[in-house]
Amino acid sequence: MFSKVLVANRGEIALRIVRGLRDLDIRSVAVYSDVDRLSQHVRYADEAHYIGPADARQSYLNVERIIDVAKKCGADAIHPGYGFLAENAEFAEACEAAGLVFIGPSPESIRLLGDKIAARRIAEQAGVPVLPGSGELTSVDEALAFAERIGYPVMIKAAAGGGGRGIRLIDSPEALPGAAARAMQEAAAAFGNPAIYVEKNLKRVRHIEVQVIGDRYGNIVPLGERECSIQRRHQKIIEECPSVAVSPQLRRTLSRAAVRIARAANYHNVGTVEFLLNEDGQHYFLEMNTRLQVEHPVTEIVTGTDLVKDQILVAAGEELPYEEADLLTRGWAIECRIVAEDPFNNFLPSVGRVVFAREPAGPGIRVESALYDGIEVTPYYDSLLAKVTAWGRNREGARQRMKRALAEFRVVGVATNIPYLQQILDLPDFISGDIDTGFLDRNQVLAEEHFEEQREIAEIAALLMVTSSDRDNGDQPLNGQAAPSNGYRAAIGAWRQQQAGLTSRGGGMGRWPRSF
Amino acid sequence: MFSKVLVANRGEIALRIVRGLRDLDIRSVAVYSDVDRLSQHVRYADEAHYIGPADARQSYLNVERIIDVAKKCGADAIHPGYGFLAENAEFAEACEAAGLVFIGPSPESIRLLGDKIAARRIAEQAGVPVLPGSGELTSVDEALAFAERIGYPVMIKAAAGGGGRGIRLIDSPEALPGAAARAMQEAAAAFGNPAIYVEKNLKRVRHIEVQVIGDRYGNIVPLGERECSIQRRHQKIIEECPSVAVSPQLRRTLSRAAVRIARAANYHNVGTVEFLLNEDGQHYFLEMNTRLQVEHPVTEIVTGTDLVKDQILVAAGEELPYEEADLLTRGWAIECRIVAEDPFNNFLPSVGRVVFAREPAGPGIRVESALYDGIEVTPYYDSLLAKVTAWGRNREGARQRMKRALAEFRVVGVATNIPYLQQILDLPDFISGDIDTGFLDRNQVLAEEHFEEQREIAEIAALLMVTSSDRDNGDQPLNGQAAPSNGYRAAIGAWRQQQAGLTSRGGGMGRWPRSF
Repeated sequence: MFSKVLVANRGEIALRIVRGLRDLDIRSVAVYSDVDRLSQHVRYADEAHYIGPADARQSYLNVERIIDVAKKCGADAIHPGYGFLAENAEFAEACEAAGLVFIGPSPESIRLLGDKIAARRIAEQAGVPVLPGSGELTSVDEALAFAERIGYPVMIKAAAGGGGRGIRLIDSPEALPGAAARAMQEAAAAFGNPAIYVEKNLKRVRHIEVQVIGDRYGNIVPLGERECSIQRRHQKIIEECPSVAVSPQLRRTLSRAAVRIARAANYHNVGTVEFLLNEDGQHYFLEMNTRLQVEHPVTEIVTGTDLVKDQILVAAGEELPYEEADLLTRGWAIECRIVAEDPFNNFLPSVGRVVFAREPAGPGIRVESALYDGIEVTPYYDSLLAKVTAWGRNREGARQRMKRALAEFRVVGVATNIPYLQQILDLPDFISGDIDTGFLDRNQVLAEEHFEEQREIAEIAALLMVTSSDRDNGDQPLNGQAAPSNGYRAAIGAWRQQQAGLTSRGGGMGRWPRSF
Repeated sequence: MFSKVLVANRGEIALRIVRGLRDLDIRSVAVYSDVDRLSQHVRYADEAHYIGPADARQSYLNVERIIDVAKKCGADAIHPGYGFLAENAEFAEACEAAGLVFIGPSPESIRLLGDKIAARRIAEQAGVPVLPGSGELTSVDEALAFAERIGYPVMIKAAAGGGGRGIRLIDSPEALPGAAARAMQEAAAAFGNPAIYVEKNLKRVRHIEVQVIGDRYGNIVPLGERECSIQRRHQKIIEECPSVAVSPQLRRTLSRAAVRIARAANYHNVGTVEFLLNEDGQHYFLEMNTRLQVEHPVTEIVTGTDLVKDQILVAAGEELPYEEADLLTRGWAIECRIVAEDPFNNFLPSVGRVVFAREPAGPGIRVESALYDGIEVTPYYDSLLAKVTAWGRNREGARQRMKRALAEFRVVGVATNIPYLQQILDLPDFISGDIDTGFLDRNQVLAEEHFEEQREIAEIAALLMVTSSDRDNGDQPLNGQAAPSNGYRAAIGAWRQQQAGLTSRGGGMGRWPRSF
């Protein structure tokens, strides 16, 4: 087993991995950029090393520096988390070359599955349906011809790259040329490869993904599906395990398909096979993500596994400690991603100091977060602040607990999407589970009149924010920790007076200042 | 279903119940004494009412006042939590008389099972073994004669009353008269009834209890056992579900015995049947607690139930939504009680302001707590600050996670038993599960030399505590919220400097100040 592992990431996922290492009695090494010096992952790890400026290219994407730190501190392995270097085959190779175990699949698997067209081929060979789609295209004319053949609407994607980045939905031949040209430019800039890829767009589809884990001995275990159809601009924001749309028969079919694909790619480590599922119950392979997924907790909670621990074990050469039949799947889990984006201002990223944070807790609630009072949310990294998961004996039980948890969550100092999530959870179609990837486009939420309470509390919060305006007044910012300045104390005093008034008239989970 | 429920309690359990009500969409009403004005249960409930001075007799034990508030605010029912009025048959009757549902068993069941001698009789009639024990005794001579007959050592207890209060272990006839006389005096003062009760004392016994829940239709479901042998002066501090000492066969036997006793007492609501289990696997009925238990979360986590929700449902007249066979029991859960007692100073209660609290989180961890930065721990109520539960696929997995959670837990401003709990978790006999109620007496923990780190951090914490010394310096205490006084800011500054130094040299979960 490893004795020391470096975590090449930040934020909630770095903290999650540090905790997994601690549960295995493995020493953890955090790395941090300038702006993350006082982050939770730094505080909680057994040791921590500075790796460079805030710009991720100079720190969390800095392969040479990270490997250098890992070697100098005597780490046996590197866990990449998700994002940053997690799906970078060159990084996996560089680890191997330096005698470090990359906690992930082989560079060959990453490369193979990261290439959308090669991955489609694997799926086809494994007998898994794929959407009608082109090969690599490098001209607008090719794209036009192919779209004509399969019929509009179509999706244009970069052939390299992943996630929701650069995806474009095209309704008509008129819209295609401009969009295709822009997509090629972006792909060239982002991935060094301008090739695009055109795919049939289905009308009402769910995004369903199957979690798998494989060891180095050819054992591959599927851990059920996740429903990830609630997306805003191709970014998942609410995920569930299981899905209302997946029957036991379909679960078996999807699980077997996922295992066949993983096996064909000679896969070990955790991985996620994504499918589209249309209204008729027909499924299509979308892609395979060769890393831990943001939404992995819902699977852990329902299956009673610890995917981070298990992926470390298999990376260290152990055999998987369970078969599919050993899993005791129980109940329903929902996850909400709490991001620093302002739902009242077109979801613009919100940066600044969080002067007060209070996370939800209690039965059925798990929070993965790197928040603390005084944390500075910067524009350098993605906007994810925390993930809240709620478990219940059934979907409605999980939904009720999630509502309770979101009502308890307080973030003062930056805007968050909590009010937006709260509205989604109350939509009749969400309650009945009638969702698909177009759900948020069709359902206009955040009508202003629902938010009187938010506005009221925003005023209190605004008071608190006096702190940011006098931060330069001689009070040192202290690397992201709230300095109790004069303005801050005045604001706190005013807020407390207001609190005292609130106590006798009630309000319900509204007495800590809310996010605004 | 109820539309509004008053929670006649405080601290973590009141918050737990408010959360359960919220999950059922029932409005919650908190009550609070002078010193609890800014407590979490007050903040989180839908409304909150003042009921009197800090002294519990004038507030949380004030039957008239609580019922008056419940009627005025239009509550349908009262949840008593545990402690205070939870096992008070007169209170249950007063609720009924006022047209309020008491969320608990009938006054008759409470009375019957609260009487130790009557409860023993029920157990005997139900064919459940009981320890050799006397009836009610009111003289030292009777006690001497009975002890002679069953042989020493014996236990002396108050015939009325419960919990660990007033229990005395007597080794020899010489020690009996004085102890019996004191026990009678105390019983008279505490319960208005001087009667005592003498019972055979077994050498090495485990405290094993079975959780049951019954509805008003005669359905009684057992929810497995809890192992509660780790006790300090008859107070449980670590509990587990299940127990290493309980085989499936024994679990069936204990569960059936518990159900027979509950049925004989015409029991509805959640209840706990306590047994002693000796080394030969022989069990003896001890008593039945007619309320929610402090350690209920370990059962919830392992069985996937919500006991608070379920007890509200059955109190409202619903049928139990599950049979024993429906429960999907999974893995292992351990709970540690975090109390404000100083393990380095003979476990004296520690009072004062908590200037900083950071609770653990992450996979497998659930915290039930009413802590917040600035909370004032007073001498008025019991010393429980929080409960940490850890779940794992097996006992060792749960133990590792508990170790991680305790290492993450930070409480600055009052002493806690966290270092003591950490040492217990590492004792070889605890690891192997070889425990009994005498475990902590035999195992001397807290050898001073293990605690260098604690001492170092205590110095930092002591710095922070400058805040208490200048609290009267014009800075208002603000009802238990930390006021950022000058001393406080100076201390924070000093601590931050120290933090900055720590960041580069590592330390591991030691960078937030620890409890001391």
